[in-house]
Amino acid sequence: MKKIKIGLLGCGTVGQSVYKLLKLNRNKYLAILDGVELEIVKILVNDLEKDRDSIPGELLTTNPHDIIANKEIDIVIEVIGGTSIAEEYITEAIRNGKHIITANKDLMATRGQEILELGNEYFKEVKYEASVAGAIPIISTIKDNLQSNQITKVMGIINGTTNFILTKMFAERRSLEDVLQEAKDLGYAEADPTSDIEGLDAARKIAILASIAFSRRVKLENVYVEGITKISVDDVNYARQFKSTIKLLGIAILKDDAIEVRVHPTLLPLSHPLAKVDDVYNAVYLEGNAFGDLTLIGKGAGGLPTASAVVSDLLSIVKNMNKDILKVQNCSCYLDLLIKKIEDTISHYYFRMVVVDKTRVLSKIADAFASNNVSIDSVIQRKLPDGKAELVILTDRVLNKNMQSAREQIENLDVVIEIKSVLRSEKEY
Amino acid sequence: MKKIKIGLLGCGTVGQSVYKLLKLNRNKYLAILDGVELEIVKILVNDLEKDRDSIPGELLTTNPHDIIANKEIDIVIEVIGGTSIAEEYITEAIRNGKHIITANKDLMATRGQEILELGNEYFKEVKYEASVAGAIPIISTIKDNLQSNQITKVMGIINGTTNFILTKMFAERRSLEDVLQEAKDLGYAEADPTSDIEGLDAARKIAILASIAFSRRVKLENVYVEGITKISVDDVNYARQFKSTIKLLGIAILKDDAIEVRVHPTLLPLSHPLAKVDDVYNAVYLEGNAFGDLTLIGKGAGGLPTASAVVSDLLSIVKNMNKDILKVQNCSCYLDLLIKKIEDTISHYYFRMVVVDKTRVLSKIADAFASNNVSIDSVIQRKLPDGKAELVILTDRVLNKNMQSAREQIENLDVVIEIKSVLRSEKEY
Repeated sequence: MKKIKIGLLGCGTVGQSVYKLLKLNRNKYLAILDGVELEIVKILVNDLEKDRDSIPGELLTTNPHDIIANKEIDIVIEVIGGTSIAEEYITEAIRNGKHIITANKDLMATRGQEILELGNEYFKEVKYEASVAGAIPIISTIKDNLQSNQITKVMGIINGTTNFILTKMFAERRSLEDVLQEAKDLGYAEADPTSDIEGLDAARKIAILASIAFSRRVKLENVYVEGITKISVDDVNYARQFKSTIKLLGIAILKDDAIEVRVHPTLLPLSHPLAKVDDVYNAVYLEGNAFGDLTLIGKGAGGLPTASAVVSDLLSIVKNMNKDILKVQNCSCYLDLLIKKIEDTISHYYFRMVVVDKTRVLSKIADAFASNNVSIDSVIQRKLPDGKAELVILTDRVLNKNMQSAREQIENLDVVIEIKSVLRSEKEY
Repeated sequence: MKKIKIGLLGCGTVGQSVYKLLKLNRNKYLAILDGVELEIVKILVNDLEKDRDSIPGELLTTNPHDIIANKEIDIVIEVIGGTSIAEEYITEAIRNGKHIITANKDLMATRGQEILELGNEYFKEVKYEASVAGAIPIISTIKDNLQSNQITKVMGIINGTTNFILTKMFAERRSLEDVLQEAKDLGYAEADPTSDIEGLDAARKIAILASIAFSRRVKLENVYVEGITKISVDDVNYARQFKSTIKLLGIAILKDDAIEVRVHPTLLPLSHPLAKVDDVYNAVYLEGNAFGDLTLIGKGAGGLPTASAVVSDLLSIVKNMNKDILKVQNCSCYLDLLIKKIEDTISHYYFRMVVVDKTRVLSKIADAFASNNVSIDSVIQRKLPDGKAELVILTDRVLNKNMQSAREQIENLDVVIEIKSVLRSEKEY
């Protein structure tokens, strides 16, 4: 019986779950691999003494070279996270002839191209399904299952923390600060939640998905990002009046040989398949030129769900190891499409502003929109105390730069006290 | 530049869409296949004269041997449908050294094992993604993307016609007959809709999915089937009162080394990810021992959506043709799990009955349930004219044989005029 020897870099929740899953479904893996056994032979940890139930102490090492330079090891699984050390270990492992599986979105969104191309050069596969949307097999779905299509749109709820927060704000009409504290208490948000709530985590993931969907390398720096920190309960309540919810979406669109990639809170009609994806669930909605649309909904995080993606990658590498491969094509970014500036993107917009409550206010504001080619779809006006009013306006689909100039003009109107928020809306679904 | 030559058996909507898609995305396919060109060289039709826009007449033939015995052809795509002729062509094509792609659920649900094993014997791939759920890549999702898991449950809306009918009945409170006529007028239902509304189409598809999910060949004859013909507007209205909808589901469950596979109308809570899948959309909900749950929603029929599945299969076969494959494993049914009798399955049940409206009726009925170990979850009672009442009862999870004997006992009670309907409910989600 042949054995495939595996080294594991990192032994946190995901690493331990990978170990556990290989035991749990061992019989199935033996069957589909024709008797080939998968064995984790070394695990890199920081602290040998920490309690890790069911993992034998003799597998642990604090020396990375016991894995990345170990001649016995065929495949290296990287679940450390972070960029600099992970990149160093992965590139050295590839040069030493190991196939790579990584769950590292930070690394793949910034140094993905270099790592994938190094894999090509050394005939080694680099797989990273676990880096986006946890258990949802979105990378293989786009890359393999839907390969007959040109994908034209990817739109995803790909950050569980912000989805938990927005779900609670919507369902319980509570403030962001309040719900964020609960998320921290429950362990759904980090002590420093900046990367999640500012949209940077989602930006990394949509960069990875856009690269695969459009065959054009998209890096973190190419993604326009707005977080959820400015969303208030008022916005959530108005969204409800428009039969919509608010979700933090990663959006990537291909149109007329140009692409746009952005992350921002978005008003989404309740009828949209992503609108009811609540709590820490992730989901990705795709459009393509043959399948039409397809939505995948599943668990975006957690030990076993992430291990599910890692071990599926592992099995697919092992199945290929028996074949005589002429070429490894980790990186499929062969197109050089233009990435649009955010000014040139088109969206519906939602404006919420406090104005002086007197006649002709609405007409002045409507004039400012009109003179910038921004047409209005619907308006809600509500009286506030002290001679003020709140005005909520949904626009038609307009160019971002037109919206921006309308916004500046409106901010300078003497009847406008403050623009409280400006959000995008995915109305046309 | 190398060419892969393809023969197409059948040139209806799907066949024409496959031809169209190969033109539409030609540049992408050349890129991902490293310059290998895909060319349809012969198309089998019944009638050479029929109008097929954009397909050159010289490709057409009425002689199947121009394709299945053609030495130039590498891959045969079967989109004729039906069983006997399709099986004859496919098996002869395999023996002549062709890889096979088929969209034929009738054939795969009855003769799948024989065909897949013949493919193994001749080292030829047999792929059939398009046979279930149109554009939703559910076969590759289970077989490849989620291969690290033991799948424990598959539950799907896999028949568009009945989903259209039930959606309309729910939204517009119209009768089955009425909506069925509309479905025929719109072309969503066949002139003879028996196979759809009696659940046989869904049964074929869940047989295919259960075989793949549980590595145990499940044939059409192993599937317990109930159609939607007995569903009335009254049932739909009561479902609404229970915050549920009614969907025709294909359900396959693995538990304690035994499986159950069934198709029937099901009360589904509105909070379930399948409950809002409306009209002709298909969807499949999966549970597995690592990913947890995953739902896929997409187009279940139509020319290009089905061609999406066919051509993705085609690309994956062509990618493999460059490799030195030691073994072809089309059929992965290596387990011999028990298939449960329907009597031994467990569900929640919904009973609707007309009774005599007098005291002690409910207690007699409750006694009959209790004496068969059927416990009651909730009851709705509504007065009818002429001294009658309608009684709707939801049970807890009970054995089918206990439900059956309770049903017989209740039918014989002098206070019970008629049991109008008995449906299953997926309550515990």
